Amino acid sequence: MVKVAVAGASGYTGVELLRLLVGHPQVEICAVTSRQHEGVQVNKVFPSLNGFCDLVCEPLDVAAIAKKADLVFTALPHQSAMAVVPGFLAAGCRVVDLSADYRLNDQAVYEHWYQPHTSPELFSEAIYGLPERYRESIKTARLVANPGCYPTSVILALAPLLEQQLVDARSLIIDSKSGASGAGRGLKEGSLFCEVNDGFKAYGVGNHRHTPEIEQELSQVAGFEVCINFTPHLLPVNRGILSTCYATLLKGQSAAELLAFYQQRYADEPFVRVLPEGELPNIAYVRGTNFCDIGLVVDARTGRVIVVSVIDNLVKGAAGQALHNMNLMYGFNETHGLGIVPTFP
Amino acid sequence: MVKVAVAGASGYTGVELLRLLVGHPQVEICAVTSRQHEGVQVNKVFPSLNGFCDLVCEPLDVAAIAKKADLVFTALPHQSAMAVVPGFLAAGCRVVDLSADYRLNDQAVYEHWYQPHTSPELFSEAIYGLPERYRESIKTARLVANPGCYPTSVILALAPLLEQQLVDARSLIIDSKSGASGAGRGLKEGSLFCEVNDGFKAYGVGNHRHTPEIEQELSQVAGFEVCINFTPHLLPVNRGILSTCYATLLKGQSAAELLAFYQQRYADEPFVRVLPEGELPNIAYVRGTNFCDIGLVVDARTGRVIVVSVIDNLVKGAAGQALHNMNLMYGFNETHGLGIVPTFP
Amino acid sequence: MVKVAVAGASGYTGVELLRLLVGHPQVEICAVTSRQHEGVQVNKVFPSLNGFCDLVCEPLDVAAIAKKADLVFTALPHQSAMAVVPGFLAAGCRVVDLSADYRLNDQAVYEHWYQPHTSPELFSEAIYGLPERYRESIKTARLVANPGCYPTSVILALAPLLEQQLVDARSLIIDSKSGASGAGRGLKEGSLFCEVNDGFKAYGVGNHRHTPEIEQELSQVAGFEVCINFTPHLLPVNRGILSTCYATLLKGQSAAELLAFYQQRYADEPFVRVLPEGELPNIAYVRGTNFCDIGLVVDARTGRVIVVSVIDNLVKGAAGQALHNMNLMYGFNETHGLGIVPTFP
Amino acid sequence: MVKVAVAGASGYTGVELLRLLVGHPQVEICAVTSRQHEGVQVNKVFPSLNGFCDLVCEPLDVAAIAKKADLVFTALPHQSAMAVVPGFLAAGCRVVDLSADYRLNDQAVYEHWYQPHTSPELFSEAIYGLPERYRESIKTARLVANPGCYPTSVILALAPLLEQQLVDARSLIIDSKSGASGAGRGLKEGSLFCEVNDGFKAYGVGNHRHTPEIEQELSQVAGFEVCINFTPHLLPVNRGILSTCYATLLKGQSAAELLAFYQQRYADEPFVRVLPEGELPNIAYVRGTNFCDIGLVVDARTGRVIVVSVIDNLVKGAAGQALHNMNLMYGFNETHGLGIVPTFP
Repeated sequence: MVKVAVAGASGYTGVELLRLLVGHPQVEICAVTSRQHEGVQVNKVFPSLNGFCDLVCEPLDVAAIAKKADLVFTALPHQSAMAVVPGFLAAGCRVVDLSADYRLNDQAVYEHWYQPHTSPELFSEAIYGLPERYRESIKTARLVANPGCYPTSVILALAPLLEQQLVDARSLIIDSKSGASGAGRGLKEGSLFCEVNDGFKAYGVGNHRHTPEIEQELSQVAGFEVCINFTPHLLPVNRGILSTCYATLLKGQSAAELLAFYQQRYADEPFVRVLPEGELPNIAYVRGTNFCDIGLVVDARTGRVIVVSVIDNLVKGAAGQALHNMNLMYGFNETHGLGIVPTFP
Repeated sequence: MVKVAVAGASGYTGVELLRLLVGHPQVEICAVTSRQHEGVQVNKVFPSLNGFCDLVCEPLDVAAIAKKADLVFTALPHQSAMAVVPGFLAAGCRVVDLSADYRLNDQAVYEHWYQPHTSPELFSEAIYGLPERYRESIKTARLVANPGCYPTSVILALAPLLEQQLVDARSLIIDSKSGASGAGRGLKEGSLFCEVNDGFKAYGVGNHRHTPEIEQELSQVAGFEVCINFTPHLLPVNRGILSTCYATLLKGQSAAELLAFYQQRYADEPFVRVLPEGELPNIAYVRGTNFCDIGLVVDARTGRVIVVSVIDNLVKGAAGQALHNMNLMYGFNETHGLGIVPTFP
Repeated sequence: MVKVAVAGASGYTGVELLRLLVGHPQVEICAVTSRQHEGVQVNKVFPSLNGFCDLVCEPLDVAAIAKKADLVFTALPHQSAMAVVPGFLAAGCRVVDLSADYRLNDQAVYEHWYQPHTSPELFSEAIYGLPERYRESIKTARLVANPGCYPTSVILALAPLLEQQLVDARSLIIDSKSGASGAGRGLKEGSLFCEVNDGFKAYGVGNHRHTPEIEQELSQVAGFEVCINFTPHLLPVNRGILSTCYATLLKGQSAAELLAFYQQRYADEPFVRVLPEGELPNIAYVRGTNFCDIGLVVDARTGRVIVVSVIDNLVKGAAGQALHNMNLMYGFNETHGLGIVPTFP
Repeated sequence: MVKVAVAGASGYTGVELLRLLVGHPQVEICAVTSRQHEGVQVNKVFPSLNGFCDLVCEPLDVAAIAKKADLVFTALPHQSAMAVVPGFLAAGCRVVDLSADYRLNDQAVYEHWYQPHTSPELFSEAIYGLPERYRESIKTARLVANPGCYPTSVILALAPLLEQQLVDARSLIIDSKSGASGAGRGLKEGSLFCEVNDGFKAYGVGNHRHTPEIEQELSQVAGFEVCINFTPHLLPVNRGILSTCYATLLKGQSAAELLAFYQQRYADEPFVRVLPEGELPNIAYVRGTNFCDIGLVVDARTGRVIVVSVIDNLVKGAAGQALHNMNLMYGFNETHGLGIVPTFP
């Protein structure tokens, strides 16, 4: 039984962590924090939790929480996370940080895309929490940097191609589409129902902060510097990311040959479902789950492969992957708390 | 371990049954049937099931299925159900029928609202599968008539008031709103995305087939004939029913007094959540689950109580309640396979 | 050519006024105001207006605007409107006020439901801007109080019944459902996409501020005090209100008889479409237009009539009705600027 | 006054043609056809048209319609169009064909992507109805082949770059997303509300029939053979296409330089709105209108330009462009019937 705290329980990632954690047989939730809702039961903030969790939101007091918790999930905005993560570690907690603060391993890159960092000394210790890439390191990590939602969808989609050196790394174009929960529960005009519903737009073209994270990890996979085009779009759905990834094939492989690599690469992965030739994924089929579904098409006319991956941005793209990391860190069954069947329709 | 078959697996109720059944620890799914998709793996019909169920859809051969199954869920249209249910019973299976064919206990009423019935002799045996009303009878039933989605939401909302004789039974007005999955997966122009999205309408006003079912059960509760106004509407969401029920109070009770009756009435019910005074339910907070959330307001100006209930029409309004009935029939823990935390947002 | 100003141009009602006004052949828009976007072109605030209106948002300076404008549309929150309306009138402008500040004619009632009023002396002069009821008075009004969205849908639905004394006025129950734009563009958690999408709830049950407005006008129609139940709900659509109105018939009229009264009552009304027997309205069929579509059903079993009306809350429920009022005030063709064909799907 | 007939009035393109035509000052609609709804008033098929058009749907009898009509809009599926278009021409009508049957100018290409063609002799006469490219030819055409929805969005987005030879034509990758009305009103499982809502998927990857049409026209623009990647996706909205187009810049132009070409190219076009640097389009801002909004970003890191265009697939992508073509063919003001302000939200 591991005692966990959720720091930042009143955001969409926070409530998603609680949804999954209350169903985990080896977890006891010992604290939830929220500045905005301090003193309020979390099931008043999210009535979906009625009957499952009635903890009172407390302030984010590192010492008080560290006394109770073995593991802290920090579901905080970047910059807020770095303000508390070192304290939790120093107090003996392990941390799965869902912010961007420890995902990049180069301080200059972080500070170029974000702002000054106050604990860059942790960069070398933090493990990028993508189990399909870093399973072994995660198991013993004190600090896991839970991947971003877009990067998760993209890295899983492209890793097999880069690992096998099947594509021209300069040719990578990634066109991603995300549901609105990716923008969080903050009050922004662009997040209002009437602004999102019936609409569709690209945003952050050429300057989205997930770009360096994707490039860092794809470069790790490829063994050399990868530079991509990454274009996110806002979908009028609550949940789901679909990434359409374009790459020029180096040796003219067929879809069947490529899918064989994918099948092999992910054969033992409990949360990656490689689709057979002729099928492509839909965000509807992974909703609420930790799955990443991947399909691909080869366009012989242009010599490119189009890989399409989908995840639920709040699960595999955030809270679910965080639980998976916890399962690895504590030696639990990897699927505990995550054996959810997708709800369709 | 009970062996179950799902007859009619390619509809929305069918896939929902499968979603829940694959997560049930004491169930083995031994057969799925579909006329439309005969010979096709059910996970090709519903890719959400990839990795969970790859049974091949077979034709609805009563003898063949009865040989394999202890319990059959008939997720068929009315009239199609009555064509096979007697056969399954005769072959020794127990049946949870999700159609309307055995819900009414008066043949004349059934035939007035539907069409001629071919096995009315089963009416007296069939148990109306609302556990909150008929728990004990369900446990030993051979044939459970799983309630309609609207009736479930309405009966649970009004039963405490009628049981306590707190309202004028002639005053009942029920204004219900349902998500589009209630119309099924059949190809109808009115079910197309563009017809439903951004739209809202009433339908079946004064003549919806759930009216006699609601009246039968409310009359049972009240102890005398109840006649209601029932107006269903079509919501542009996949799942969820919200019923707004109006009734004239006989003795001027306060909301607190009424809620006390509700709390008491449903104290031991695992799937009814009575909200505290001042809170009202939202279909978003029960999505994917077997919960019925109920809240109410007393309008002292008019002397009426307004009770609002929500369910997920595919779970508590169909497949989830069917599983609950199965749990009762086989002495399983009532919440097995149904301990799902609502996914929000 | 009338010179009009829109005070409060950066809300949804403001942009809707601009959408309609730029298409009006006898209007010149001389000023738009916005505190939040002062100094910004209104087509930067709403890119839908690109090519149609590039006025710069100015502060709400009564004197400066009164100098330019013949008519001011005040699309401001209640309380903000009363702070400027008397000034505009004193400066010689005519005003169509889209707030609630001058809709009620009883100061005590206003102050019970809202807050203290600073210019109650205008109550007797303000004309309730529902053309179907007050056409002649509107023509010469200095101050028109543009009706609320819910009241518009309800009064038009019930007026023929009450005018003809066909229903028991104590029996009125009104179950209304509105799209999310009714809540405005303000930053509230409950207005976020993820909170509204896939959800549905009742709100303000028994205490919504449109209740006294509806009661005032229905009482006017009936000739005696009317007290109603009014329950609004939030629909996951941008636009549209549907009101389902229940009333007990006094003399057992048929649907055909009732519809004949409706046809006759609204025969000369350009914006009311009474549907033939057997048809019911859908918000999808009035989207973007000033129409109110009305259908009804008589339920002989209970002796009640169910009247269903739909409007676009931003048009007939706000900006379109305001334009209609302007057309009347200036002797323009009533349909100028409003001859819009509904966009379906 | 031109007399027009709409062949195929019961589809989404048909009703959209009627919406626009009833508002056109120089048009008289003389006939509407529908096999499915023969003998039914078109406003019964689409109640949005109540009060605007009550013509009875007639069978598609070429001789009878040709007697009444000067111009026929054929809003029919491909293959059905070619069955009647030659007849209409022979009978002296002019035709705007909204199907794909006369868009391609190479019979072999048509028959590779579709099926055998029965009137290829008309290929040389048919004018591709994109006014921004073929305005002069359209004016005198007997037969206008109205462009596909995706091609319209893509050609307008890329033409300025190819005309100026600013990009590597082998580098073109087009990632498009369309609302559900693009699939028409036909009864397909994939078009059901519950299948589309909350979902998102790619489809037709590498083999969508709009590919040769896009390539034909881009090749015309470029002056040499262009081969593209084209990936359509299905958006959970009724209307709107957004195309994200990637191209490698040949000479490292800045966004400002490129936008200057776009501004100049489309300066006199009434329906193309080029957005200023830093702004990107949203389908919400063109809804219901004939506009194509275009924005772009240059990603200096990869040397690519990302052009984003949006249209309403039923207007600029179908019925609106057809009206524009009619206006050109009859010498009307180009914007007649199309001067619609976008409805937001």
